[in-house]
Amino acid sequence: MCSVISRVKPVQRALASTLRLRTNADGLNYAAAQSRRFCPGFITGAQPLWVTSRSYCARIATTDGLLFRQLFEVESSTYTYLLADADTKEAVIIDPVLETIDRDLKFVSELGLKLTVAVNTHCHADHITSTGLMKKRLAGLKSAISKFSGASADIHLKEGDKIPFGRHSLTVRETPGHTDGCITLVTGDQSMAFTGDALLIRGCGRTDFQQGCAKRLYQSIQEKIYTLPDHCLIYPAHDYLGQTVSTVGEERKFNPRLTKSMEEFVKIMNNLNLPKPNKIDISVPANLVCGVHSI
Amino acid sequence: MCSVISRVKPVQRALASTLRLRTNADGLNYAAAQSRRFCPGFITGAQPLWVTSRSYCARIATTDGLLFRQLFEVESSTYTYLLADADTKEAVIIDPVLETIDRDLKFVSELGLKLTVAVNTHCHADHITSTGLMKKRLAGLKSAISKFSGASADIHLKEGDKIPFGRHSLTVRETPGHTDGCITLVTGDQSMAFTGDALLIRGCGRTDFQQGCAKRLYQSIQEKIYTLPDHCLIYPAHDYLGQTVSTVGEERKFNPRLTKSMEEFVKIMNNLNLPKPNKIDISVPANLVCGVHSI
Repeated sequence: MCSVISRVKPVQRALASTLRLRTNADGLNYAAAQSRRFCPGFITGAQPLWVTSRSYCARIATTDGLLFRQLFEVESSTYTYLLADADTKEAVIIDPVLETIDRDLKFVSELGLKLTVAVNTHCHADHITSTGLMKKRLAGLKSAISKFSGASADIHLKEGDKIPFGRHSLTVRETPGHTDGCITLVTGDQSMAFTGDALLIRGCGRTDFQQGCAKRLYQSIQEKIYTLPDHCLIYPAHDYLGQTVSTVGEERKFNPRLTKSMEEFVKIMNNLNLPKPNKIDISVPANLVCGVHSI
Repeated sequence: MCSVISRVKPVQRALASTLRLRTNADGLNYAAAQSRRFCPGFITGAQPLWVTSRSYCARIATTDGLLFRQLFEVESSTYTYLLADADTKEAVIIDPVLETIDRDLKFVSELGLKLTVAVNTHCHADHITSTGLMKKRLAGLKSAISKFSGASADIHLKEGDKIPFGRHSLTVRETPGHTDGCITLVTGDQSMAFTGDALLIRGCGRTDFQQGCAKRLYQSIQEKIYTLPDHCLIYPAHDYLGQTVSTVGEERKFNPRLTKSMEEFVKIMNNLNLPKPNKIDISVPANLVCGVHSI
């Protein structure tokens, strides 16, 4: 069977098998899409198309030449982000998911990118990261995560660290509160911030497990994210309502939780009474070691 | 019950009730999100944040001042697009979905937009449009669709027509083949094309129902979409693999169907053997009249 899932360890296989198959909608290329979903399919000899995504981040001159793509994993509603230098081809991937590793690596191959760092914004409780498996398939790739995550990785990040890729880099801002090891990654020109599960679109990460602390999360968002420019685009790790992006300005104005005082915020967060995440008992142990695989 | 669904007609209520509830992933604000999903919730007095999304389309100077947002409806994997003039606040929405009408109108309200036109790229077979209901909730809003769609609407579009919104406009390119009335909408600077179900990311619309014709679709894509600049961003009506955007250059190079000759393409399309779309018998009749509601 042409499936990466057959080669991974039992815990991941069990998880992968739960991947919900979607009903066909308008038809289109769904059958083919599904057949490709688990099939490694590198296109060799593909040439990069550098000009393609520049418009996303060309508002500020210094980010010209930055390739950017947002990707979505439907089962966990996770956004994965790919950023690359248009000239050197060096690339960074943020929060890749095990189930979509083939899609992501195929895209990296098509555009001729050299993926150097796979970084997780925190130790996820809802899905297994693909960083471990990705390292096995891409020579030279390094995994990265916060030093306060408790997770193994090649690179342990702390406040102010930079993740370089060609002329560009992402700067680490520690934003604990959802977990101790949550980080926000900010582009050099502060036009984009990858906020993980700290700040979501009109929401925020829960604070009732994995070292969660509502007061700490509130402070993190106020001090480390809301201090970015209003026009800075917010790209979270998840969205459950089909919203793909927000801005610091919008969230400062419309986020129903973060427009409250700290006391009100803490009260809201302490009374959410959310169910335990379905996969936390499998995901967290796996993500502490880059998705089960050796780092 | 605070639900727009309770006020709509039976066919839509039945459809809406099939909306699959997602399992909680990392938790976060999921419960609150779900409770908002069907709840009208205009924020009054909200001021627009014009600067917010300019970076999406500021690569070419003439598109500066264009607000752009991509939105996703998970049940039918439909992308809805909102474009607005940053100065006049006039806005256009493309392919809005009934189930997400509250999300979309809340966002329109938050940003202080004046939605003038709701346009469908074709008569959809996989979901019911919200244009009819949206017209009831927003005074002055006009619905639009191709004159060859067979559907009712305030505005019937044909090749070369422009949909203006402030200083900006979308130009109609007829791209039949998936249906007779399929159109692609292109921004003035040709930096973005909304291709509906004609060209998808690494795929295309099926051609085995609703006047589908593989040869015609091939010609439409080659003559009306592939003639756009390589860097032109492709925003389709659907994506089933979590890919959010592509470019003309990428699709010319990597689309597994459209890199073939017309003969090979027709053969591929005639042998897809896809199941009938689940909702075609409900969606198409409804969409012929703007989602059941009077136009």
